[in-house]
Amino acid sequence: MNSTRRFSGVLAPVLTPFKKDLSPDAERFVAHCRWLLGQGTSALAVFGTTSEANSLSVEERVALLNALIAGGIAPAQLMPGTGCCALTDSVHLTSHAVSKGCGGVLLLPPFYYKGVSDDGLFANVEQLIERVGDDRLRIYLYHFPAMAVIGYSLDLIERLIKAYPSVVVGLKDSSGDWNNTEAILKRFPGFDVFPGSEVFLLAGLRNGAAGCITATANVNAAMVRDLYDRWQTPEADALQQQITTLRNTIHAYPMVPALKEIIGHYRNDASWRTVRPPLVHLSAAQARSLIADLEQKKFALAA
Amino acid sequence: MNSTRRFSGVLAPVLTPFKKDLSPDAERFVAHCRWLLGQGTSALAVFGTTSEANSLSVEERVALLNALIAGGIAPAQLMPGTGCCALTDSVHLTSHAVSKGCGGVLLLPPFYYKGVSDDGLFANVEQLIERVGDDRLRIYLYHFPAMAVIGYSLDLIERLIKAYPSVVVGLKDSSGDWNNTEAILKRFPGFDVFPGSEVFLLAGLRNGAAGCITATANVNAAMVRDLYDRWQTPEADALQQQITTLRNTIHAYPMVPALKEIIGHYRNDASWRTVRPPLVHLSAAQARSLIADLEQKKFALAA
Repeated sequence: MNSTRRFSGVLAPVLTPFKKDLSPDAERFVAHCRWLLGQGTSALAVFGTTSEANSLSVEERVALLNALIAGGIAPAQLMPGTGCCALTDSVHLTSHAVSKGCGGVLLLPPFYYKGVSDDGLFANVEQLIERVGDDRLRIYLYHFPAMAVIGYSLDLIERLIKAYPSVVVGLKDSSGDWNNTEAILKRFPGFDVFPGSEVFLLAGLRNGAAGCITATANVNAAMVRDLYDRWQTPEADALQQQITTLRNTIHAYPMVPALKEIIGHYRNDASWRTVRPPLVHLSAAQARSLIADLEQKKFALAA
Repeated sequence: MNSTRRFSGVLAPVLTPFKKDLSPDAERFVAHCRWLLGQGTSALAVFGTTSEANSLSVEERVALLNALIAGGIAPAQLMPGTGCCALTDSVHLTSHAVSKGCGGVLLLPPFYYKGVSDDGLFANVEQLIERVGDDRLRIYLYHFPAMAVIGYSLDLIERLIKAYPSVVVGLKDSSGDWNNTEAILKRFPGFDVFPGSEVFLLAGLRNGAAGCITATANVNAAMVRDLYDRWQTPEADALQQQITTLRNTIHAYPMVPALKEIIGHYRNDASWRTVRPPLVHLSAAQARSLIADLEQKKFALAA
């Protein structure tokens, strides 16, 4: 393990709870973040895809980040998502995160235009770094082609690392493609790579990954963390199999509504089921089926 | 023609000029809008894809719309794009547009999440209409699957028209698929459909379309308007062929940078070439080639 890493281990892309009127529920958000850190997550990748971050305005993200820090979460443990379609929004959110002392930011590419060039995506990062203008900035590239469609190619990653070696320090690979993750790990030793799913945690660690950033850590952080702690022991493969099975059980349903359903069900807190459009909560039948599937796997949300 | 239509004819999705520092250039924007109205566009679909609207913050869009109205553009002639990934942003921009008296808004679906359901997209429009809460609101759906990936299906359009017949009054079809445009025209008579390209203007008008909303109107509005005015004359097919040829000439290059290059070149105003990342301006070689292609077609930007 590289001891100079700012982030390692299991990070949760934290779910964003909403009130009935769809406004962000800062109180439940802070409480959930505290609980996640108590469950073994080493840090919190707030405002990711699982967080419905792109369904939040810039002001809503700023207010939630402020609430977390006011609520006692250490900024060094925060890696907020700050990559927006508009450069000015990305600069605003990134500057705010850096000024608050966040350990890093997770940067989606500007995802509206498709078929854009690596030159254009490079320019976006270049402009962001220049405009934020703060040596404390650490960027983790967020590669998620299934949602953003555009992404960070290996050649673009190389250009960015060469141009900004002390700023562009890592990447979350949510491609779901182990070949891509492995290629990044092999080509850029010392770059902090986080597979976007615990399914690739063990393979990742065996190839130099820094950990993983995974949606299911919202409900299953302790088990994922257990594998992270014991990946060099004889039990590692069995532990991987266990968390992969649970992941696949949940992933049979739409991920964000399913995770919110699980928390709502086990905490007996229906409020947690609320999502913002365009997402929709699980139907009653889906919810019953999901919980039955989980109980068959002996899953229960930790208190 | 339906005389109760709020918008008809040729609409331009107006290019957004930027200063060297990438800030929006309100002065050139207002001047370009005035020029477009003088060239025969009946209205202005500001803040569309051609406008790099998703590369602008909410505040930047609000300021530019205010500048247009302060600059004397009649709000009834404006159809600003107000559909964002975040419902709260869409509500903010739509409320602002309605409060300023804009004739309508052009609504992209929330485009970050992919594979979302029609229920979720319906809920997004439903929430928007309820939250804006203003009888003056008129929504034109913006269907552009090549960029947004998600879109408005025929069944979803039907649900929206049935639920909000006086609000959801039209659609811009940028699918580039005439079969889709034709299917919408046939299924929803009285719904104001605008193909997203002048290539389908004549076929559209022959099938009841309200006009077209087309990027190339930024440089070629007069010719497109001429076809709109004479579509029932014997010259119509020849006029269509002419504007299609010019469209294809420009479309051989990346559309937004090419249009900005054309304006920059013919107005001798290099400032116009600036785009925000992730777009990039044309290379010098591309620019020379584009202008040569246009001159071969005897094109020159009107004064």
